[in-house]
Amino acid sequence: MKILEEKILEEGKVYPGNVLKVDSFLNHQIDVGLLEVIGEAFYEKYKDRKITKILTIEASGIAVACATAKHFHVPVVFAKKSKSLNLGDDVYVSRVSSFTYGKEYDATVSRDYLTKEDTVLLIDDFIAIGNAMKGLVEICDQAGAKIAGIGICIEKGFQQGGDDLRKMGYDVTSLAIVDEMDSSGKIAFREGDGEGLFL
Amino acid sequence: MKILEEKILEEGKVYPGNVLKVDSFLNHQIDVGLLEVIGEAFYEKYKDRKITKILTIEASGIAVACATAKHFHVPVVFAKKSKSLNLGDDVYVSRVSSFTYGKEYDATVSRDYLTKEDTVLLIDDFIAIGNAMKGLVEICDQAGAKIAGIGICIEKGFQQGGDDLRKMGYDVTSLAIVDEMDSSGKIAFREGDGEGLFL
Repeated sequence: MKILEEKILEEGKVYPGNVLKVDSFLNHQIDVGLLEVIGEAFYEKYKDRKITKILTIEASGIAVACATAKHFHVPVVFAKKSKSLNLGDDVYVSRVSSFTYGKEYDATVSRDYLTKEDTVLLIDDFIAIGNAMKGLVEICDQAGAKIAGIGICIEKGFQQGGDDLRKMGYDVTSLAIVDEMDSSGKIAFREGDGEGLFL
Repeated sequence: MKILEEKILEEGKVYPGNVLKVDSFLNHQIDVGLLEVIGEAFYEKYKDRKITKILTIEASGIAVACATAKHFHVPVVFAKKSKSLNLGDDVYVSRVSSFTYGKEYDATVSRDYLTKEDTVLLIDDFIAIGNAMKGLVEICDQAGAKIAGIGICIEKGFQQGGDDLRKMGYDVTSLAIVDEMDSSGKIAFREGDGEGLFL
């Protein structure tokens, strides 16, 4: 998606340790105009799949999921990263090791909001090694829900998360795939993933 | 706001310890249609205030903030609850004691995304004792940003957070104020807060 690639080139910052910072428009400050375009792109790709739920994980995924869900007219469910006093015990749980935060947490979803009747589009803002997304896949498996596709805004193509999920047979759509980057500011994108579908 | 009060009456659940669970439509599963109406209501109330940023705090506030920000055509900034490896050191910080999670955390916002040039609308899904919102106020004070108003979806009127902020002089708009509730399912709402403005 050209508009997203251009935004990454303009505002993304590369830091040591394979960190790509896009917090000026995606995961700390949010460009809501760009978000609208991203939501439309995911809808365009998955509109015929009879989606009943959009599943994401807190926190930054929520904005992307809501911008997508309004086109499908279906609810968003977001997995929680720590067990709150309000969540109750009747939950699906997947243990996730976080690259960004350098620690482990439980991703939890209430059994009330995901069932075997659901056809789910999984959404997140970012994928690197993919542990958060694999946690969402595991939660869908626990629920018996069907996974219709996986929509990611930015994939780090030089880490294995996106390709792991493709090998597992999932229909992964990453709107921008960063295949190379370095701290001089060089960022190179991969062609593909329905590139022709999007602006 | 009648549509929100009705949703709370239909789907809200009261638990011991003054817990009002609205996770079927607001803070675990999200009704994106309702979210759109909520965003329009906050826009209607604050559209003449020359808002430059919507500030909220992860996680559930993000959905409400984005639904509001798109009408203002301004960015959302969400305060983070734990310091990620990606955030950097140049941040505003406020220590928050959480009622919901029973622990303390630091709310942080990068100095890059909030300055004294900003006129901010603060948004959150819920207010009880108000510590998260008071943390956002403190962050705006650190930045020298002007606070134009505070928009809350659901206020627990029998706890002091909303009224504390009103006494501090802020223009607080809570779309639904729960003044009484008990585990028999009784929920009573307060009149007021621009009730006439909203459906």
